[in-house]
Amino acid sequence: MSSLLIKGGTVVSASGRCEADVYAQNGSIKTIGSALNMPADEVVDASGQYVLPGAIDPHTHLAMPLNGYSSQDDFETGTVAAACGGVTSLIDFVDCRPGDSLYESIERKKSLARGKAALDYGFHGTIIEDRPELIAELKPACLDYGVPSFKVYMVYDIRVDDAAILQLLAEAKKHGALVQVHAENPAVIDYMNRVLAQKGKLAPYYHAKSRPNLCEAEAIHRMLKMAELTGSRVYIVHLSTAEGLEHIRRARERGVEVYAETCPQYLTLTEELYKSPGFEGAKYVCSPPLRTEADNRALWSGIRTGAIQTLATDHCPFDFHGLKDRFGTDDYKKIPNGAPGIETLLPVMYTAGVAKGRISLEKLVEVLSTNTSRIFGLRSKGEIAVGKDADLVVFDPKQKFTIQSGKLHMNVDYTPFEGFELEGMPSLVYSRGLKVAQWTGSQMEFCGKPGRGRFLKGRPLAGGV
Amino acid sequence: MSSLLIKGGTVVSASGRCEADVYAQNGSIKTIGSALNMPADEVVDASGQYVLPGAIDPHTHLAMPLNGYSSQDDFETGTVAAACGGVTSLIDFVDCRPGDSLYESIERKKSLARGKAALDYGFHGTIIEDRPELIAELKPACLDYGVPSFKVYMVYDIRVDDAAILQLLAEAKKHGALVQVHAENPAVIDYMNRVLAQKGKLAPYYHAKSRPNLCEAEAIHRMLKMAELTGSRVYIVHLSTAEGLEHIRRARERGVEVYAETCPQYLTLTEELYKSPGFEGAKYVCSPPLRTEADNRALWSGIRTGAIQTLATDHCPFDFHGLKDRFGTDDYKKIPNGAPGIETLLPVMYTAGVAKGRISLEKLVEVLSTNTSRIFGLRSKGEIAVGKDADLVVFDPKQKFTIQSGKLHMNVDYTPFEGFELEGMPSLVYSRGLKVAQWTGSQMEFCGKPGRGRFLKGRPLAGGV
Amino acid sequence: MSSLLIKGGTVVSASGRCEADVYAQNGSIKTIGSALNMPADEVVDASGQYVLPGAIDPHTHLAMPLNGYSSQDDFETGTVAAACGGVTSLIDFVDCRPGDSLYESIERKKSLARGKAALDYGFHGTIIEDRPELIAELKPACLDYGVPSFKVYMVYDIRVDDAAILQLLAEAKKHGALVQVHAENPAVIDYMNRVLAQKGKLAPYYHAKSRPNLCEAEAIHRMLKMAELTGSRVYIVHLSTAEGLEHIRRARERGVEVYAETCPQYLTLTEELYKSPGFEGAKYVCSPPLRTEADNRALWSGIRTGAIQTLATDHCPFDFHGLKDRFGTDDYKKIPNGAPGIETLLPVMYTAGVAKGRISLEKLVEVLSTNTSRIFGLRSKGEIAVGKDADLVVFDPKQKFTIQSGKLHMNVDYTPFEGFELEGMPSLVYSRGLKVAQWTGSQMEFCGKPGRGRFLKGRPLAGGV
Amino acid sequence: MSSLLIKGGTVVSASGRCEADVYAQNGSIKTIGSALNMPADEVVDASGQYVLPGAIDPHTHLAMPLNGYSSQDDFETGTVAAACGGVTSLIDFVDCRPGDSLYESIERKKSLARGKAALDYGFHGTIIEDRPELIAELKPACLDYGVPSFKVYMVYDIRVDDAAILQLLAEAKKHGALVQVHAENPAVIDYMNRVLAQKGKLAPYYHAKSRPNLCEAEAIHRMLKMAELTGSRVYIVHLSTAEGLEHIRRARERGVEVYAETCPQYLTLTEELYKSPGFEGAKYVCSPPLRTEADNRALWSGIRTGAIQTLATDHCPFDFHGLKDRFGTDDYKKIPNGAPGIETLLPVMYTAGVAKGRISLEKLVEVLSTNTSRIFGLRSKGEIAVGKDADLVVFDPKQKFTIQSGKLHMNVDYTPFEGFELEGMPSLVYSRGLKVAQWTGSQMEFCGKPGRGRFLKGRPLAGGV
Repeated sequence: MSSLLIKGGTVVSASGRCEADVYAQNGSIKTIGSALNMPADEVVDASGQYVLPGAIDPHTHLAMPLNGYSSQDDFETGTVAAACGGVTSLIDFVDCRPGDSLYESIERKKSLARGKAALDYGFHGTIIEDRPELIAELKPACLDYGVPSFKVYMVYDIRVDDAAILQLLAEAKKHGALVQVHAENPAVIDYMNRVLAQKGKLAPYYHAKSRPNLCEAEAIHRMLKMAELTGSRVYIVHLSTAEGLEHIRRARERGVEVYAETCPQYLTLTEELYKSPGFEGAKYVCSPPLRTEADNRALWSGIRTGAIQTLATDHCPFDFHGLKDRFGTDDYKKIPNGAPGIETLLPVMYTAGVAKGRISLEKLVEVLSTNTSRIFGLRSKGEIAVGKDADLVVFDPKQKFTIQSGKLHMNVDYTPFEGFELEGMPSLVYSRGLKVAQWTGSQMEFCGKPGRGRFLKGRPLAGGV
Repeated sequence: MSSLLIKGGTVVSASGRCEADVYAQNGSIKTIGSALNMPADEVVDASGQYVLPGAIDPHTHLAMPLNGYSSQDDFETGTVAAACGGVTSLIDFVDCRPGDSLYESIERKKSLARGKAALDYGFHGTIIEDRPELIAELKPACLDYGVPSFKVYMVYDIRVDDAAILQLLAEAKKHGALVQVHAENPAVIDYMNRVLAQKGKLAPYYHAKSRPNLCEAEAIHRMLKMAELTGSRVYIVHLSTAEGLEHIRRARERGVEVYAETCPQYLTLTEELYKSPGFEGAKYVCSPPLRTEADNRALWSGIRTGAIQTLATDHCPFDFHGLKDRFGTDDYKKIPNGAPGIETLLPVMYTAGVAKGRISLEKLVEVLSTNTSRIFGLRSKGEIAVGKDADLVVFDPKQKFTIQSGKLHMNVDYTPFEGFELEGMPSLVYSRGLKVAQWTGSQMEFCGKPGRGRFLKGRPLAGGV
Repeated sequence: MSSLLIKGGTVVSASGRCEADVYAQNGSIKTIGSALNMPADEVVDASGQYVLPGAIDPHTHLAMPLNGYSSQDDFETGTVAAACGGVTSLIDFVDCRPGDSLYESIERKKSLARGKAALDYGFHGTIIEDRPELIAELKPACLDYGVPSFKVYMVYDIRVDDAAILQLLAEAKKHGALVQVHAENPAVIDYMNRVLAQKGKLAPYYHAKSRPNLCEAEAIHRMLKMAELTGSRVYIVHLSTAEGLEHIRRARERGVEVYAETCPQYLTLTEELYKSPGFEGAKYVCSPPLRTEADNRALWSGIRTGAIQTLATDHCPFDFHGLKDRFGTDDYKKIPNGAPGIETLLPVMYTAGVAKGRISLEKLVEVLSTNTSRIFGLRSKGEIAVGKDADLVVFDPKQKFTIQSGKLHMNVDYTPFEGFELEGMPSLVYSRGLKVAQWTGSQMEFCGKPGRGRFLKGRPLAGGV
Repeated sequence: MSSLLIKGGTVVSASGRCEADVYAQNGSIKTIGSALNMPADEVVDASGQYVLPGAIDPHTHLAMPLNGYSSQDDFETGTVAAACGGVTSLIDFVDCRPGDSLYESIERKKSLARGKAALDYGFHGTIIEDRPELIAELKPACLDYGVPSFKVYMVYDIRVDDAAILQLLAEAKKHGALVQVHAENPAVIDYMNRVLAQKGKLAPYYHAKSRPNLCEAEAIHRMLKMAELTGSRVYIVHLSTAEGLEHIRRARERGVEVYAETCPQYLTLTEELYKSPGFEGAKYVCSPPLRTEADNRALWSGIRTGAIQTLATDHCPFDFHGLKDRFGTDDYKKIPNGAPGIETLLPVMYTAGVAKGRISLEKLVEVLSTNTSRIFGLRSKGEIAVGKDADLVVFDPKQKFTIQSGKLHMNVDYTPFEGFELEGMPSLVYSRGLKVAQWTGSQMEFCGKPGRGRFLKGRPLAGGV
């Protein structure tokens, strides 16, 4: 029986904070109290620091095959980096192939994680076909497989059409499943690609122009109308625009059960970065693209007012040298699409959100941990509460750190946040009671065990969040 | 050293729930854990029940003088009734008189509570004059008196005008104080009173017609524009209309720090009740008046989406027989204005909200306890967390109870919720570790100590909620 | 040289009225003046009556093949009926077939009108395929064929997808053409059809339920976003919902050049009619379906505030006996879809709009004649002004008439407005100076000449309306 | 019997244009026709030019006493300047004094116009007191005096409060009178004045900062709610903000009969001008102040979509040298408040609106003439139609002119539009058939008769516009 006692910190929840000691046994939180003095294998002095629930990243793409190459972080490097950033769980996407059953796809993805993941992980299904057998698997996925959320794409060649989405929504409603959506209008993108190509506008900057705000807003509006029709719950991934947020707000007011996720890149970076010198703009090529300061501001307002419930990274790293700068120099459409982020999620959001006064620390815990665990039914995660897993971050608000790619652990040669000055860093990170990362004085160091991570069964949400 | 151990219940917070035991010593929560087994003076088995933080009612009028008579509950009867309903703290309004200092008014109100209150209580100041000395007292009120919130009326003869409100808002901003507002447009009411009188429309129903929705909406909009100008935080008391809510939502989206409170009567009752047989409609005469089902629905949506942060009662009881039915039978304007509610707050909201599936139990805790303590800076209240006061409600979701005025403890001869079928009741209520009320098998019984309640110093909110 | 002098009437335009005489020569208005006394072949005393420009119906389906049968009015019966209702021009839809050129389709439709039409007529193209040759024909259609407007369907098997619409919009913008759209979401309809069929809900009422308001609103929003992207002008045909109108308003405010048309059935009838006794509900089966009173009210507000620019009929008659009541008794989906309206347009709208005080007579002229001629570039029509065609209606606001199918001239056995009490009727109707209809004392009588009608060349709109 | 024949021009109305000749006799339009050839005292060749109805300026302050000085244009200089700009009627404000009856005030104002005015003029009443006798005069004012519109100020020392406004609105509704409102919140201005003074911010630029957008928006919203309550029609003078427009739009959609007026300065100039070198910013000190480009854009959209119905000038000139630059150099609050505009109204709006493609020429006629005559019941004005006064402008769209104060006729030493390059100018201006101004080749020349202008009786509007 291993045990851990964290003493003297300020324990933060989504709705408040208190001075308390936290005692965990065998990976679970057993007692929260003042002046706890039971013996423990590891006793930590957290005075002057916050004790936070570990962040949950509900949107990662580890070991994802894409156009012949693969996203560069696998479950080992990805979870090592996550741990070093204070993320203690993640939910990745099952990469379905035409004809596969959900079950097969889930098992294949599990096999990629097994023996490698240093942290616990869950999965979202992906529905890329309008096939009755797939729809029929929603029920066992929710009840047996532990995969109660399903993503659809309204763009890309794996997209499904409105008819398929309506089928999926109706079936999801029966089981309380959650339909996630990558909402962009493909005809708009094709049209803009053609218009831009005709004008010879092929530099990275035109990636942003090819997917204007209305491209996302239209698709979100359509999705919300379909959800309104079926009465199903939906989840908008990586929301990037003020217009999309507006649609979400109105739908929530009308009673549609819609959740929204955004990412640090859409809160802190702008499309001006696509004009970076040389081909550096390619680093920021992800979809949806970076937007404007007005969008950034709107999204912060969305978090503050509760219209946006979760933060995620859409972590999907590709090297700048050799990949991004090898493909696509003549055409933004060929640039490997994605960016790294899992290691910087918590400290960047703490800095840009809490330290800058945009949101409270409680709100940060809510959108990084508590809401995420509730929405995806990860019942052992998301809070510092009795019976929950001891996924804990001791966070030092006085520790400065300037982000440098070379000091990070993600398997990629750059970070979109290079040079970002953090105003707070994790000092210790625990996964189920085991220390998995610590601050060395100049950077984070991984000290967990690859392969220790377990698959997390999600359960359909009962009641709203 | 008294101690209390509540075992086996489901402990609920604003953001989740867990199976845990709660141990309190000397009135404070000391430990929350699984299978706690320390000895305690009182050990309670809460299995199958919820353990909730006691509700906080931030809007009561105890012992309030009004037109020669007085609201009928004083600090003893009022807190006894509150305890029997699971409310464990309340915030009452200091009744200022022209020329008084805030300090004097606060001390006078304290003297009414001292020796009587069975529960802890805080105060809001009331600003009824545009007097520089009063404005100058905001600073000591926030820093020393423990009264960081100040109400103004936009109606009644104690109203202040826009100029005074702007002054107040500007000064409040300096100290982080919160300005509360009763928002109605007095000219609209006067106009409607005259129009209705000319037509001989003087029955209770016309109380509602004399204060149409736009009467509130106009005043809220004006208040929000003033708050936007000064950058101050404001708090709308007893929001009753869909239109007012709409203004609040848009202001929050633009970044105005506005909080909104509504009451059970605006969520569950409608203006049709003013047409009750005989003069019974007078029971529901309070201001703002009851509205329509569409407004009810909008307000529930406001709670669900986070646009409304708190629930309160505006408890201000006057007997139907001898008061309501003595004055005003010939003119709705003379009916003693106010209604009782402090004892029914928690179970009515549980039933209409949680049991009916409109909101989650976590949301109920948020709007009844957690948000309230945060907004008004009652740091020892609002959550079941280490170091907080042991203000606890053991709540039995299986206990039915049909509301009958005769079984309640408020000092008034009726309740607007007569016959309402509750689907859950408190079984035990604790104030700082002391049992103050319990379920007897057929009704609640008070078992606390009048006079034990203490004045709660509020502190200005740092950061948003 | 034939000549006509209408004396003593009140001449009404979209922006005012005056007492004036109107003199026409050879079918054109030559002089408007006071006390005109030139000799004329026909002199009419219009005292106490209005002199209006003839109504233009921009949305008819004459001689339209549909599922093996055909809409029952051809260009002769249709224009005879139109004349009897004060409609003096119409714009019908070219019925394209896969593979046809626009030119061929237009010529084929012309051949149906030639020798039959008693009134002047124009055409809208219809784009049912994403074929480059068709897109390439937009230019000659605008410049040579006189067909500068093109309709697309977002539903039915002749629908085109977003990609095709974007292409069309972009090409239309080059030539100032107008893209018209029947906006409904086909996946929503299919989904609802399936859901209703599973529940055995197949009566006419479920026609309305199968196409809920959001079905139209979603498609309108999508269309407007596409128009916003390309900067093209668009025209929403037969707007029926408050939600769709809201999207149109917001788009106009943002600068999108969108025009909207609604029809008498969406302003005056409601879905309750689908529950008419027996199978009578089938009479009202048209798409979009009838909506609610709230939608009626919203659409009137849209006309009043200028958000809706034109009124049309979507005239597409099928007999109740033998057609509507032969097909579809077991399934609303099989009911021949469409309803008659061309003869009742003006008097129903005068009665429901002007006589009921909802809109001014000037506004009626604007939406029935002036806006229509401007939007579709029918330069000789739409106003009583020097040089315009003498398409005139002498309208008697004192003449009552109760609509009875048997007294109408449309080639169909019912009218949706049976029993509607008109508070004004045309007394004389002129097409290019020739009397084409007159009031006989109990009903209207046609007195024009089939075959006299000419094809009207439309010109692209320069500048907005 | 004098007569005038204008041949060969393009006659423009609010809803279209046609090639026609216009014949007037004794000051009234008698005939509009093609190839008119009756003999006339004056025959004008207007080929290649537009023939427009003369503009009506419904918002001028001629000979208005203010703080001891007076607005510098009296009825002679003011109407001479107006004529030279193509304005052929104006509606000025009766300057009421406390205790005066409306009748006295109107007669006093008439005496200022008599013998001086070169153009026809009407009056608006002004209600500066909540006095029953004044309210009682609304009826005779509408029926007998010919003054059916009444302005109230929500600011300044002549303001009336909400109670008085409600009384006025209710009485106005009985007679169909129109209540006009200068909508600003006085407490906001006082507050900002004090804040700015404390910071020593007293330069002209702070005039704008002292009246932020919400100052107008709040007052408009309040006014609209009052109008909604009473069901009265209201007219917002000199609308300047996007936020105010938004309130107007929503009110119109809900059915409130609200009209809105804006001015060239709010469409084409911005607050940056207050930072002009030296004290030149004082030239633009008027209330409400100039706003931003975003507001300009919104107001153009308001005109285009029909949410704004009229254009006016708020003409109220004070010399820069000797008045503006004599008072207020140390405090923006002391700068004589007002600006000239009556002479530049039509050509500036033609240039900024029509020539720049923002609105059609028809829309310009609508907002400068037709709507204005309809809203204020000036039945003989506003259109080129049989029986209307021959108030005509022959307008040459090819005539360029760069505005220079020295070439204008207003009795003031500057114009806010100095250097503005006009892309069209009147060549001839007629008032009731008499030539009053003409283009000399380099500037406009007055050729009318001071004193010939008559008082125009307005009539309450029947039905909406």
